[in-house]
Amino acid sequence: MMRRKAKGTAAERELLNMLWVNGWACVRAAGSGSQPHPCPDLLAGNRLRKLAIECKAERGLAKYLADEDINQIVEFASLFGAEPWIGIRFDKIGWYFIAPHDMNKTDKGYSADIHIVKRRGLSFVELIEEKKVLHQRL
Amino acid sequence: MMRRKAKGTAAERELLNMLWVNGWACVRAAGSGSQPHPCPDLLAGNRLRKLAIECKAERGLAKYLADEDINQIVEFASLFGAEPWIGIRFDKIGWYFIAPHDMNKTDKGYSADIHIVKRRGLSFVELIEEKKVLHQRL
Repeated sequence: MMRRKAKGTAAERELLNMLWVNGWACVRAAGSGSQPHPCPDLLAGNRLRKLAIECKAERGLAKYLADEDINQIVEFASLFGAEPWIGIRFDKIGWYFIAPHDMNKTDKGYSADIHIVKRRGLSFVELIEEKKVLHQRL
Repeated sequence: MMRRKAKGTAAERELLNMLWVNGWACVRAAGSGSQPHPCPDLLAGNRLRKLAIECKAERGLAKYLADEDINQIVEFASLFGAEPWIGIRFDKIGWYFIAPHDMNKTDKGYSADIHIVKRRGLSFVELIEEKKVLHQRL
């Protein structure tokens, strides 16, 4: 079993490569999570759109995120001029992308399970397709 | 005396902080220089502009860059939809920013000395000022 942090990094690298292969430029941010400034895990762009992505890998059926995780991706994306996305790689169904405001609010943060991401989120192909994400454009 | 790599990283961090203090969002890219994909040192943005910056620290009066350094920042910036900049922190005169095509071509790459960056480049204040960089906009 891969350790939690290594698994997160492997997921980030996988998504970074998927973006490059599909014609997007993408960087992994250094020191995400250990910085004084808000910071996404990945920052991707093409001539039309910029995506600030917080990446998570999840073995189970639901992902829980702290308020802080959501606040920092929203704050960064707003300042940078990018779309904020939470990218979750579920072992069972692969990558899904959900907008922060489409997650469920819990007492201590936010959550999204497999049903929610399928209903309110986007697959990778939908994410990188221009038309589907007009509601998220700045 | 600081080691070469530590000095480069310190310069990147300094510039990252200068950008945040002035209202820009900025990330340092992980694994810049050791990746299969082109990658800038810093990626900064606000609602109007995105900057892909290759950072260098220079004790002397001139900085030399390999063709590869210039090609990768130009390629990344073009794909991402950002302005490509070479940021050089000269010990003697501080930060200057020069567009790749404004550097001098040499046999093995490109160069810019203090006189060239002052004449063709921008100070930090000029870089982050909207009006001065219209010629660089995509």
